[in-house]
Amino acid sequence: MSQSFSSFIPPSRVLMGPGPSDVYPQVLEALARPTIGHLDPKFVDLMDEVKQLLQFVFQTNNTLTMPISAPGSAGMESVFVNLVEPGDKVIVCQNGVFGGRMQENVLRCGGQAIMVQDKWGEPTDLNKVRETLQANLDVKALAFVHAETSTGVLNDAKALCQLAKEFDCLTIVDAVTSLGGSELKVDEWQIDAIYSGTQKCLSCVPGLSPVSFSDRAIEVIKQRKHRVQSWFLDMDLIMGYWGRGGKEGKSSKRAYHHTAPVNSIYALHESLLILHKEGLQNTHARHDRNHLSLKSGLEKLGLEFVVQKNYRLPQLNMVRIPDGVNDAEVRDRLLNEFNLEIGAGLGELAGKVWRIGLMGCSSSRKNVDYCVSSLEAVLD
Amino acid sequence: MSQSFSSFIPPSRVLMGPGPSDVYPQVLEALARPTIGHLDPKFVDLMDEVKQLLQFVFQTNNTLTMPISAPGSAGMESVFVNLVEPGDKVIVCQNGVFGGRMQENVLRCGGQAIMVQDKWGEPTDLNKVRETLQANLDVKALAFVHAETSTGVLNDAKALCQLAKEFDCLTIVDAVTSLGGSELKVDEWQIDAIYSGTQKCLSCVPGLSPVSFSDRAIEVIKQRKHRVQSWFLDMDLIMGYWGRGGKEGKSSKRAYHHTAPVNSIYALHESLLILHKEGLQNTHARHDRNHLSLKSGLEKLGLEFVVQKNYRLPQLNMVRIPDGVNDAEVRDRLLNEFNLEIGAGLGELAGKVWRIGLMGCSSSRKNVDYCVSSLEAVLD
Repeated sequence: MSQSFSSFIPPSRVLMGPGPSDVYPQVLEALARPTIGHLDPKFVDLMDEVKQLLQFVFQTNNTLTMPISAPGSAGMESVFVNLVEPGDKVIVCQNGVFGGRMQENVLRCGGQAIMVQDKWGEPTDLNKVRETLQANLDVKALAFVHAETSTGVLNDAKALCQLAKEFDCLTIVDAVTSLGGSELKVDEWQIDAIYSGTQKCLSCVPGLSPVSFSDRAIEVIKQRKHRVQSWFLDMDLIMGYWGRGGKEGKSSKRAYHHTAPVNSIYALHESLLILHKEGLQNTHARHDRNHLSLKSGLEKLGLEFVVQKNYRLPQLNMVRIPDGVNDAEVRDRLLNEFNLEIGAGLGELAGKVWRIGLMGCSSSRKNVDYCVSSLEAVLD
Repeated sequence: MSQSFSSFIPPSRVLMGPGPSDVYPQVLEALARPTIGHLDPKFVDLMDEVKQLLQFVFQTNNTLTMPISAPGSAGMESVFVNLVEPGDKVIVCQNGVFGGRMQENVLRCGGQAIMVQDKWGEPTDLNKVRETLQANLDVKALAFVHAETSTGVLNDAKALCQLAKEFDCLTIVDAVTSLGGSELKVDEWQIDAIYSGTQKCLSCVPGLSPVSFSDRAIEVIKQRKHRVQSWFLDMDLIMGYWGRGGKEGKSSKRAYHHTAPVNSIYALHESLLILHKEGLQNTHARHDRNHLSLKSGLEKLGLEFVVQKNYRLPQLNMVRIPDGVNDAEVRDRLLNEFNLEIGAGLGELAGKVWRIGLMGCSSSRKNVDYCVSSLEAVLD
């Protein structure tokens, strides 16, 4: 192999796409601390703290709360492969890309996905969900995306969970983009299984997926008739490593399952500390404030929001690309001349919209101003 | 939540267990560089370099060579879920923990695992494998562990692959502990699917799993009758993101599949650079040299190797715990007084052996001397 290689020095981008978001410098610092063993008592203590901090951000007492050692899409899969068995019916609400991915997961578990479709850019219609629940009284779970990253729509998680409980079915929630950016109350809303990602509003590096399962979900897993199809994502095995909580919790022996991504866990811990210190309400208020100031700036440039105000996400701003403007050219110039990343449209929205993220560390006055002034220069 | 939390400052351990190994300082430095987008053209270029460097360490031209965005056990699963369909027969050689995990994977794919069992601490018996192949002419694949981390045994990968080819079946190889520590020639030995981990002889942080699939394996995947049961590990989708190589290779558009663990990829790139610079032969020679000097030091302390010399791994040294010596107490003292981690026995070997790793960066004269002198002090 004659080619010569050299160390990779990344450019310093400003990350205002749909994720990853800018990572807090303290998080990068934590990431680079010396690796220790994944069964080292000091690491096990850290795992316990990460669990507690995740319980805080999820607003839950669920003992089964932890990061899956892989990105959000693996977190999604961990929920479906553990809860859905062949033949199970799951209602999946789709109003963007990620509802479709949930459907894929149900199908690959041998389940039946009953779809409730809504227009991309609009929220899931509660009436349709109620009708679908009424027409399918044997459904096992209702699955939906809390914050649709592909459109910037907030679905009404609280109301959807209430509906599901009325019909006595489990709730499965995608909180990849909502965790840390939108109000989210796992216990109060009675969410049974939820997953997120570290690279959005937590402003940690990508690669981990925090999940939480209610006691009811654990009971369902225990009653399974078929083995979980994934060994890597079998929650029963993962619990043996992350601890089962309760009486056998902190002091219980941890069984080796896989090697945890030790350094990424350092980083997650640090990002959760930052969120814990700021407080959830303050974090949400900051996301709202910066969203409003971005909105004001973008509207001055003549850019229009696609999503209606009452279900618009502050952390993911989807605006229409003006007629005659070349999508790729604008994004390329922003990236190359301004080191600024914004997101393209996904799926049916490709070429029609931009998605501007204001997530976690990226949700700052500085980023808002920089984004507006850079766009102004490029669109001029 | 009234508890107060603070940043986690890990102790500086010397990692001589079965992995993670000591991480190169340059790798930690690379890890902490600023995060960029997972579809950023600069990142896509980096992905291409990582592929090339992995082709180098695997000694292959396989275009489907890349890191799975999760630990080695997910890499293992990626191989099985893509290659094994319900009803498929796979011969699995077991002479330690990880052969058993392969069996689990086959079963969870709906396949039939035909086991070839050998004693833990001894290599897989080629005659038994031949007999099993002869008795099962319809097997799809032969699966085995190249370097058994649980025992320190090197299985004869070249001969096993040759046997499989004689019977025209696929070869699936676990190279978690062998990659970068033992001779490994994917193309020359005709390996069809192989997976490894980053936290062993590559001395990168844990969390990624380099994999490689031959063109023949890709053909088998293309001919599948059932969909791959994992969405996250579906190689067809992953290829869309990592690039398909060949004509549609470098310049092809990358489809979003999941968010790559960007910073971990920086780290992997740096660790591969180090290996590329040292050269595979030099790396192997260093592993052999340090193993011999550890062996000599341990034998002076009266410690005996369990595995015979001709199939003993230089990177994983399994020694018998002397009679009357308390396993846990010795390891605890090494950890607490010397900041030195060595490995316990797994499964049926628990309490009977120690596993001392000399992997990648950990394979150094300094570590050897420190380990011997620390053990001497504790056993005294």
